[in-house]
Amino acid sequence: MYKAPVEDIAFTLNHVAGLADAIAAGKLGDLGADLVEAILDEAGRFATNEMAPLGEIGDRQGARLQDGVVTTPDGWADLYRSWREGGWNGLTGPEAYGGQGLPHMLNVAALEMWNSSSMAFALAPTLTMGAIEALDKHGSEALKARYLEKLVSGEWTGTMNLTEPHAGSDLGVLKTRAERSDDGSYRIFGQKIYITWGEHDAADNIIHLVLARLPDAPAGTRGISLFLVPKFLVEEDGAIGARNDVFCHSIEHKLGIHGSPTCTMIYGDGKFGDEKGAIGWLIGEENKGLACMFTMMNNARLAVGMQGVAIAEAATQKAVAFARERTQGKAPGWTGAGMSPIIEHPDVARMLLTMTALTQGSRAICYACAHAIDMAHRTEGEEARTWTERAALLTPIAKSFATDAGVDVASLGIQVHGGMGFIEETGAARYLRDARIAPIYEGTNGIQAIDLVARKLPLSGGAQVSGFIGELRTIADRVASAADAGLGETAERLKASIGELEAATQWLLKAQAEGQVAEALAGATPYQRLFGLVLTGAYLAKGALAKVDDGRTDRRIALCRFAAENLLPETAALKRQVVEGAESLAAARIVLA
Amino acid sequence: MYKAPVEDIAFTLNHVAGLADAIAAGKLGDLGADLVEAILDEAGRFATNEMAPLGEIGDRQGARLQDGVVTTPDGWADLYRSWREGGWNGLTGPEAYGGQGLPHMLNVAALEMWNSSSMAFALAPTLTMGAIEALDKHGSEALKARYLEKLVSGEWTGTMNLTEPHAGSDLGVLKTRAERSDDGSYRIFGQKIYITWGEHDAADNIIHLVLARLPDAPAGTRGISLFLVPKFLVEEDGAIGARNDVFCHSIEHKLGIHGSPTCTMIYGDGKFGDEKGAIGWLIGEENKGLACMFTMMNNARLAVGMQGVAIAEAATQKAVAFARERTQGKAPGWTGAGMSPIIEHPDVARMLLTMTALTQGSRAICYACAHAIDMAHRTEGEEARTWTERAALLTPIAKSFATDAGVDVASLGIQVHGGMGFIEETGAARYLRDARIAPIYEGTNGIQAIDLVARKLPLSGGAQVSGFIGELRTIADRVASAADAGLGETAERLKASIGELEAATQWLLKAQAEGQVAEALAGATPYQRLFGLVLTGAYLAKGALAKVDDGRTDRRIALCRFAAENLLPETAALKRQVVEGAESLAAARIVLA
Repeated sequence: MYKAPVEDIAFTLNHVAGLADAIAAGKLGDLGADLVEAILDEAGRFATNEMAPLGEIGDRQGARLQDGVVTTPDGWADLYRSWREGGWNGLTGPEAYGGQGLPHMLNVAALEMWNSSSMAFALAPTLTMGAIEALDKHGSEALKARYLEKLVSGEWTGTMNLTEPHAGSDLGVLKTRAERSDDGSYRIFGQKIYITWGEHDAADNIIHLVLARLPDAPAGTRGISLFLVPKFLVEEDGAIGARNDVFCHSIEHKLGIHGSPTCTMIYGDGKFGDEKGAIGWLIGEENKGLACMFTMMNNARLAVGMQGVAIAEAATQKAVAFARERTQGKAPGWTGAGMSPIIEHPDVARMLLTMTALTQGSRAICYACAHAIDMAHRTEGEEARTWTERAALLTPIAKSFATDAGVDVASLGIQVHGGMGFIEETGAARYLRDARIAPIYEGTNGIQAIDLVARKLPLSGGAQVSGFIGELRTIADRVASAADAGLGETAERLKASIGELEAATQWLLKAQAEGQVAEALAGATPYQRLFGLVLTGAYLAKGALAKVDDGRTDRRIALCRFAAENLLPETAALKRQVVEGAESLAAARIVLA
Repeated sequence: MYKAPVEDIAFTLNHVAGLADAIAAGKLGDLGADLVEAILDEAGRFATNEMAPLGEIGDRQGARLQDGVVTTPDGWADLYRSWREGGWNGLTGPEAYGGQGLPHMLNVAALEMWNSSSMAFALAPTLTMGAIEALDKHGSEALKARYLEKLVSGEWTGTMNLTEPHAGSDLGVLKTRAERSDDGSYRIFGQKIYITWGEHDAADNIIHLVLARLPDAPAGTRGISLFLVPKFLVEEDGAIGARNDVFCHSIEHKLGIHGSPTCTMIYGDGKFGDEKGAIGWLIGEENKGLACMFTMMNNARLAVGMQGVAIAEAATQKAVAFARERTQGKAPGWTGAGMSPIIEHPDVARMLLTMTALTQGSRAICYACAHAIDMAHRTEGEEARTWTERAALLTPIAKSFATDAGVDVASLGIQVHGGMGFIEETGAARYLRDARIAPIYEGTNGIQAIDLVARKLPLSGGAQVSGFIGELRTIADRVASAADAGLGETAERLKASIGELEAATQWLLKAQAEGQVAEALAGATPYQRLFGLVLTGAYLAKGALAKVDDGRTDRRIALCRFAAENLLPETAALKRQVVEGAESLAAARIVLA
């Protein structure tokens, strides 16, 4: 059973991602190390003891739909109540509406623990947090006054309604329409699919954020507006009123996250209310909905990255525990009685160490991204601009690298279990099934790669990325100076990989500057992985450096070396794919014709 | 829906794996190109029209157990009957017992098509074929006379009973016991788990091959005997007699292959028969059961490799079809009206081409392995010895590389489908769920890697593998000589990768010769993948060379180049893991302590 790795999380936050420095520099107000520790401990306790035991039942039962009513798995409604009563929903929420206004870093750390326990369950608050953010940033004071407090407390949950049957990632073609009413509200008509926690029995109201198009809206993405559409209308005094004309038509039968209802929502077809359309209120300005949604989506991307980290952590814990207990054959050098535990076999150790390194690397990348977001909010001027860019640069890498790692690690976890891994009762297969959605939703990892290459590399004319690479070089230099025998070839390998990242970066910037967009995008995915691997190497090294002065063999030093010598060699291949692979890819299109 | 790729299969058999040459050299008796074509066409028709439509229903319904009776999914019993009546079960079966005695190459080609249609269904005949082989090779004439004809015709199916709850891959510790009876038969007592198609309603009898231990047997693997234990006893005249004391206690709830009943079988607990134990007959000699089982397992490993190829093929077809239809955004250079089909996006094209290259590479490796098996059976003396070694060398690579490819390709297939890939009705997720068992059963891919490094590389003092690498060099030289512009950098890349394979091979042989077993095994899995990638590059090149003389741009040439320039760069990283990775892996064991 999953046990929240509070020590690893705290170490990565403080010594790799920059939390300790930010506290020391006074950037985080009166937040101190003691409070951080208390919050992490308490979140770990809740995740381990309360939430994790309900993860498996959620997978087995799934969410069920009958007559428009969605029932969550046994115990989940109670779990949700005790979770929100613990104050977890408002961790980073605005203080004006009852939130604790804590840094995003603490929230992603907590999110990791919820997702390790049950990704399907954790999706509910993940969506609510996105809704809070969009509403807080773009909503009118009246809307905020009526909805935010209940969303921050978690009494009500939020959703995000983008996708329609014909439009997945391309929002420009969506058809849901909104009509203006005389009282300043709007009427919404249309169908949305893949709406996470769109309907359920765990909260008193559900606040849908819906993208729709006004009758006179310009075509494409410049004609999209964002509306707030509650399941139940809310009276002046905050009391729950009449049912609005929105309902859940069906839920999906999915590979994983069975406990999370994925709904098709129908707006304004007359099933409820006055049959004149679902009533909604504009968030932000008309036709500016996409910008509002992006606020929500950017942090949602990091939250999805945390799902990858979370599944990787849980799958690794399970596989390591199994490999310690299970005996088979005799590993080379095994001198014990009988068969050796399979963890002694070098091949099994390789799998487990790869899983561990990918988990810790992904965690560090995601936490570093959260740190950049926090710093962007807590600095000003040029400094804030730089941090904003850093967060923008890291977001697609955090989302994609961590979610790919989630899938790869969960798959290795099954492999470590052998035949038992394929049996559902074992629980290893659930991690793969759950993990598989994360590289897809909130923008597929291919879309993240396009974002990284086409929009993020050119930030500040390439200065953001080259500055960042310079910081990574500094880490490699520090490793070289440390000259710790336990680090083996880490400095050389890391420098070589950083060199490959730099060369690939320059090539992509140049190709795009010269209009070779297809050539650049052909290498976007390998480049994204290259960046993630280099960051894994660099951040594990940063963690190892914090231990070098101890003068002892430390597990962080050993893991860093393993990653440098066994995972980083791949970066040379990835660089070649980026700078030399596009022509053959273009030529091979005839294979697909 | 899956359509059997008969042209690709025939091309790979003939021009890559050596079938056309073997026919021309008269090695395959009176088998001619016409018959090959007719068999492939007819198998393709059956797979496409009859079998594929029942694959999805099998996944959805699964096999069901009630009161010891296993019911297969709707339509499967009829499908099985029409399939065996078509003569497919006896394709390679011994002619003396009604089989067609055709080369193994044709059988694996047909197996691929059955597995693409429904891997769960195809498992039934796959196990029967293994039982036929073990019985034909090691059984007494009396046993063969009583059982083989019905097994060859497929009227009865066969199973393979190795695993027990406490013993997965390590057969030395199994506990099922056998006692001698006065009449020369034996009584079997024990429990076996993970028995594929151990009980079902699609055949009149089920012939279990069971590993068990005699009371006076030596400890370990030298004390294991193989027994034939029929579900129903068979009378002198071949009629079905009394029920034997074996039954299905439970079936597993698995991640995939839902239509295939995975049974826990109980032998001799008194539920049926005379309550004195399940009646069995010895196959081969007492305490020599493992050798008999290995006959069965070696070909079963290749058959599992075919499952990987089959899933990869089916998943690729589905993804390509989806990517042609689905429109999203505008790909660079897209000048059509509206959104472009996603196949136009370079990132999607990269996924689909990677899937195609892995599928075709895996297919070629598996077919080449079947070719070596055929040649070993149809040559003599030194030549036969060499082919036997070649088959032995290729088997672990075929099993592991193809099954890893099956998982990777199926996972990419989901990714291409975006959100729809996660919805079970789409059908893309089933491929990943089914594929995930193949790297595990018949010896995990880690065990294949140990077999490859520890037992196969040293064959003939290393001469077998170095001779094989020499043949691969010849292919690379031919590519260089061809100097076809469409092949791009293929010759250089292939040569470099072959050089890396050679260096890694020499390092592993030397390490083992010097007693560094743990160091060698630490790199076994990356080495196995390295070998598979080099073979993928070499076999795709061999196929391309067959097209170079056409003087036109051919899809095989383009795919070969894509693989050389985009997949082969990984071999350098894998070689480094093999020759430089062991020390850091050993040092990092403290991470897992």
